[in-house]
Amino acid sequence: MNQPRILLQLDCDQQPSSFDAVVAIDSNVDHLLPYANVEAQSVVPLVHGAIFTRGPEQLKQTAIFVGGSDVGRGDEIGAAIRAAFVGPMRVSVMLDGNGSNTTAAAAVLCAARHLPLEGATATILGGTGPVGVRAARLLLQQGAAVHLVSRNLERAEQTCHQIASELPEAVTSGLQPTAADQVDAVLTDTSLLLACGAAGVRLLSATQLALASQLQVAIDLNAVPPAGLEGIDVMDKAMQRGNRIDYGAIGVGGLKMKLHRAAIQRLFSANDLFLDTSEIFQIGLDLEAARQSSA
Amino acid sequence: MNQPRILLQLDCDQQPSSFDAVVAIDSNVDHLLPYANVEAQSVVPLVHGAIFTRGPEQLKQTAIFVGGSDVGRGDEIGAAIRAAFVGPMRVSVMLDGNGSNTTAAAAVLCAARHLPLEGATATILGGTGPVGVRAARLLLQQGAAVHLVSRNLERAEQTCHQIASELPEAVTSGLQPTAADQVDAVLTDTSLLLACGAAGVRLLSATQLALASQLQVAIDLNAVPPAGLEGIDVMDKAMQRGNRIDYGAIGVGGLKMKLHRAAIQRLFSANDLFLDTSEIFQIGLDLEAARQSSA
Amino acid sequence: MNQPRILLQLDCDQQPSSFDAVVAIDSNVDHLLPYANVEAQSVVPLVHGAIFTRGPEQLKQTAIFVGGSDVGRGDEIGAAIRAAFVGPMRVSVMLDGNGSNTTAAAAVLCAARHLPLEGATATILGGTGPVGVRAARLLLQQGAAVHLVSRNLERAEQTCHQIASELPEAVTSGLQPTAADQVDAVLTDTSLLLACGAAGVRLLSATQLALASQLQVAIDLNAVPPAGLEGIDVMDKAMQRGNRIDYGAIGVGGLKMKLHRAAIQRLFSANDLFLDTSEIFQIGLDLEAARQSSA
Repeated sequence: MNQPRILLQLDCDQQPSSFDAVVAIDSNVDHLLPYANVEAQSVVPLVHGAIFTRGPEQLKQTAIFVGGSDVGRGDEIGAAIRAAFVGPMRVSVMLDGNGSNTTAAAAVLCAARHLPLEGATATILGGTGPVGVRAARLLLQQGAAVHLVSRNLERAEQTCHQIASELPEAVTSGLQPTAADQVDAVLTDTSLLLACGAAGVRLLSATQLALASQLQVAIDLNAVPPAGLEGIDVMDKAMQRGNRIDYGAIGVGGLKMKLHRAAIQRLFSANDLFLDTSEIFQIGLDLEAARQSSA
Repeated sequence: MNQPRILLQLDCDQQPSSFDAVVAIDSNVDHLLPYANVEAQSVVPLVHGAIFTRGPEQLKQTAIFVGGSDVGRGDEIGAAIRAAFVGPMRVSVMLDGNGSNTTAAAAVLCAARHLPLEGATATILGGTGPVGVRAARLLLQQGAAVHLVSRNLERAEQTCHQIASELPEAVTSGLQPTAADQVDAVLTDTSLLLACGAAGVRLLSATQLALASQLQVAIDLNAVPPAGLEGIDVMDKAMQRGNRIDYGAIGVGGLKMKLHRAAIQRLFSANDLFLDTSEIFQIGLDLEAARQSSA
Repeated sequence: MNQPRILLQLDCDQQPSSFDAVVAIDSNVDHLLPYANVEAQSVVPLVHGAIFTRGPEQLKQTAIFVGGSDVGRGDEIGAAIRAAFVGPMRVSVMLDGNGSNTTAAAAVLCAARHLPLEGATATILGGTGPVGVRAARLLLQQGAAVHLVSRNLERAEQTCHQIASELPEAVTSGLQPTAADQVDAVLTDTSLLLACGAAGVRLLSATQLALASQLQVAIDLNAVPPAGLEGIDVMDKAMQRGNRIDYGAIGVGGLKMKLHRAAIQRLFSANDLFLDTSEIFQIGLDLEAARQSSA
């Protein structure tokens, strides 16, 4: 018989995310152990407590979730967890600081419902933030070209350079940094538009959007008015507007939540999973395949 | 099928109250999420995590309890929670910082077992503290006149002014501030005496108590010797002494605990309850009615 | 019907031990309430919340575990908990800061499988640390003589003096402080060798070990290479080497874990247990007796 499912919630914030806590409970975690103010350098005893308390065949019943508002610190914590494992004594881990992985994956999965990502030309506004970077990586890996847009060209260039250093060259040849004030020029050949900017910031006017004559799918992940993309509603879910399919933040949110829960449940299927952007996207592809076959 | 019942315990203290935690668990909460050092200004993400994680029909399975030793800060947190709700996306809330609401309600309910509150003349010692203020409000709302006593007349006046500003004028006409050194004069017409002073402080001597010739019920909420009212025992529960019925802190405590648990359980009956003093008192009235009908 | 089993985990560290949390859950605790940064002087409200929330017959369903890396502070917390109880209103308590009690007890129990402790001559390396001191007490109480070894003779003398002040004189007559650089002299008559030094510190070379011609059992509790006792492997569990039986840290760990779980479960059998070194060792003796009778 299996022991209860225990999830350690390692959170870099002063208050561990109640959002992540509720989702964990709704993903059939039996006991949640939240830890606040977690830092990469203090992770070892927490990890050792997770890996040295159950027999090898029961280690899959313990897992670690890394959340919190500072996505970069979450990545450092993830690396520190990995380093603290002792050979086969390890537990599965999911990284989703600020929901960045599940959000980026869900957005890309929504797009994939309406156009082939292979060969698509995507423009990512707010492309240097955690969600933007993750969406860029996923889109490139699926064969899309990506205009990565930032108000600051230098930051866009640095981010593209960083992404290029992490992925095969064949995949990143279509990656181009773009300054926000030059975005009109790249909109003309854009088939997929993704707005990942800060909450409550208008990124494109309706006039600008009209320039994107090839646009098939527009996704705005900003939930706080005004919309990042003028004319898109936060509730839009595959809303047809002319030739365009629109998604708002809440329209993407349903799949994001489903994916978050599925990923937590997946953690308890083995003791050696490390669910970062790509692995979470793959779980999403599985969900989408199951959805299509049941439809 | 309903999702598990989750209670967020928002506590302003460094250690979230273990008292509130045990009572929550004994009220059939499935998962308790305690948060320490909570401040009104940091409440938004905690509330959003509660309201944006479950579907509308399941939001009643999530609730928030506000506790901690600083009752004023608890009230601020309650207001901040309300402000953070987004339209129908909300969860039920209970305020009971330092047990002040359940204690005040239980004390008034104990009194109501023995005399009609309508037309009673109540004297509240320690009337400017959280329990005293709450008991005063409840007694006024039930039609009693209230002498609100404090060592400091100015504080008594300020408190009465504050109470009068919150309640209908018809209800507060019988509210009178009294300095503790003038209390003998008001004891003569007092039918209900309630001692809500600090732990271990003697408020009235037996000689003073003897002045209260009309006194029907005396309740002392101080659990630490010496008694606030000389001659009343902490264990007294409807103890007859001459013409007087006495209650001590533990004598009231049974009903307080029952009420605390009933209020927590009530939270999960809907997603839009806000249980403050009056609502908790009303739950107590329901308990008392059920008790009488089963007796 | 019994109410759910609640365990308060009072931990002096910034992050409550995840090790202790997982073990508690695996010992059938229904609800774990972890508290971080606990200090002896802040224990009263936590204890009162534990003892004043359930009826007398249900108090055995609430218990307190004291853990954390600072064993001395854990002892102070334990004393403060005891002082906060109110007559029969109390709950059971287990002290196991840094696993010191369960580790010391398990090591002594492993030894007792292979030689009579009564009349044995034990040498304890790292004898002034929490595990060493506890093992020394247990061995003396079982009738062994003990050479308590420290790099610092003065600390060894102080520790022996402290132990002698706590136990009957008849029991401590065989207790002798020894400086680490004089250890060769005491090895010649040692039948039981226990290494309780710091992680990753070599305490005895193979050459020195060879001096211990009477040695029957050698136990090395250091899990981090190099071994405390040269030639002993961390996985050794009753490994025969010549005339000697060897145990490494993981070899002792199985019994330590079993004992930790059994002690947590024992907490919920009554509301007045106080499980410190001797009581935990006694639970271990019961486990060993059950093991032998079932073998």
